[in-house]
Amino acid sequence: MSNRLEVIALAGLPEIEEGMSVGGLVAAAVEDGLRDDDVVVVSHKVVSKAEGRLRDLGTVTPGERASALAAELGKDARLVELILAEARSVIRAERGVLIVETHGGWICANAGVDASNMPGDDAVALLPEDADASAARIRGEIAAGCGSSPAVVVADSFSRAWRVGQVDVAIGCAGLAPFDDWRGRRDATGRELTATVVAVADEVAGAADLAREKDAGAPAVIVRGLGRHVTRERGPGAAALRRAETDDLFR
Amino acid sequence: MSNRLEVIALAGLPEIEEGMSVGGLVAAAVEDGLRDDDVVVVSHKVVSKAEGRLRDLGTVTPGERASALAAELGKDARLVELILAEARSVIRAERGVLIVETHGGWICANAGVDASNMPGDDAVALLPEDADASAARIRGEIAAGCGSSPAVVVADSFSRAWRVGQVDVAIGCAGLAPFDDWRGRRDATGRELTATVVAVADEVAGAADLAREKDAGAPAVIVRGLGRHVTRERGPGAAALRRAETDDLFR
Repeated sequence: MSNRLEVIALAGLPEIEEGMSVGGLVAAAVEDGLRDDDVVVVSHKVVSKAEGRLRDLGTVTPGERASALAAELGKDARLVELILAEARSVIRAERGVLIVETHGGWICANAGVDASNMPGDDAVALLPEDADASAARIRGEIAAGCGSSPAVVVADSFSRAWRVGQVDVAIGCAGLAPFDDWRGRRDATGRELTATVVAVADEVAGAADLAREKDAGAPAVIVRGLGRHVTRERGPGAAALRRAETDDLFR
Repeated sequence: MSNRLEVIALAGLPEIEEGMSVGGLVAAAVEDGLRDDDVVVVSHKVVSKAEGRLRDLGTVTPGERASALAAELGKDARLVELILAEARSVIRAERGVLIVETHGGWICANAGVDASNMPGDDAVALLPEDADASAARIRGEIAAGCGSSPAVVVADSFSRAWRVGQVDVAIGCAGLAPFDDWRGRRDATGRELTATVVAVADEVAGAADLAREKDAGAPAVIVRGLGRHVTRERGPGAAALRRAETDDLFR
């Protein structure tokens, strides 16, 4: 049982470009070494860059649907074209907000297409195609680089229904149990806990976000003290965090 | 700028009863002292207990609406009666799930009425009536007890639309800027950040939750290293985290 965590932003990563080994660079940047029971949280942005998931708005020609929607929402039509290409369905398009379900199954604003911290005025990043696979690959790269095999979380900032502001959540993970499931276990008074399933991977992503500043270029954070949630196996990944449409009341 | 956080679960708090000073007990339980730039995160459950916000299901007589809804949802009619009494409106009542907007303005399952970690089979806790005021009071109690004036967050576990599992969020805070607002500031490449408002108070609540186990009776957690978000003033509180109905697309 852990009663103390450390959350450590990792300095010294270079600007990431397509083809670079994010895990190798993390392994090289860690000064005190990584442990097998650490969790390394990586911003999706550097994963997208490494995987070549960048687009240049200057090369995008918006179609009719994107142009109409962009006019309605007051958005850049080229951006909306990219968002629609990343979307399985549109959940809401109102009041300047475009919320979709991505092909990967995430429900989020703008399909996660993101223009911040990007080189060039027209460059945007798409989400990794399969961030669970990205996390597993980065885990392997870290192990190859420094011999340790920490859990890896790929995080992105998502808006929420009903609450203002964004929090970082997990869109990919490897080697981390995404949930701490207390159903059937008992609380401190001996009463059975019926509905307590803690989304550990999301809380880890949010905790990591607290340790870095958006302008500091610190895309990797180590969370130490969560060994009880770290697994040798790759595990179900962040895919398990996606609520099935049949269980969902808000789409 | 902080690049390292510590998250420390506080052991040694007694079972909280009505009228007890939660802040005084926190001050007494801290071994290494608290700093003015710490954040103390307290589970709403102990706040509700201290404020007498407990109910005994044995004393509740469900009305007609609660009985009908309970039958439909497969829930205890007495519990549904309490939930409806705490609710300003019902957002969803389907498939065994009852999501409401509380009188305090939170949108959550079961109006936050909670049966875990409660003494007695029929005891349940309601949310504090005004958890921002609770946080401010606890902050004052801590200052009286040990001379330090850390920020205080009152946290509860909320389910989310679209994502499985619960995360802890802030339902009250005092002395903490609930947001880190990057709009108008620039990212590492000099590009203006247009939509980045980090819900710091929620990420702090989630980080604290990682450091405690649901059965360990550790209702208070210190988060150290977030001094840049801690304010001398009480501030806007977690009320600022509630999205106005006019801005919300999911109710």
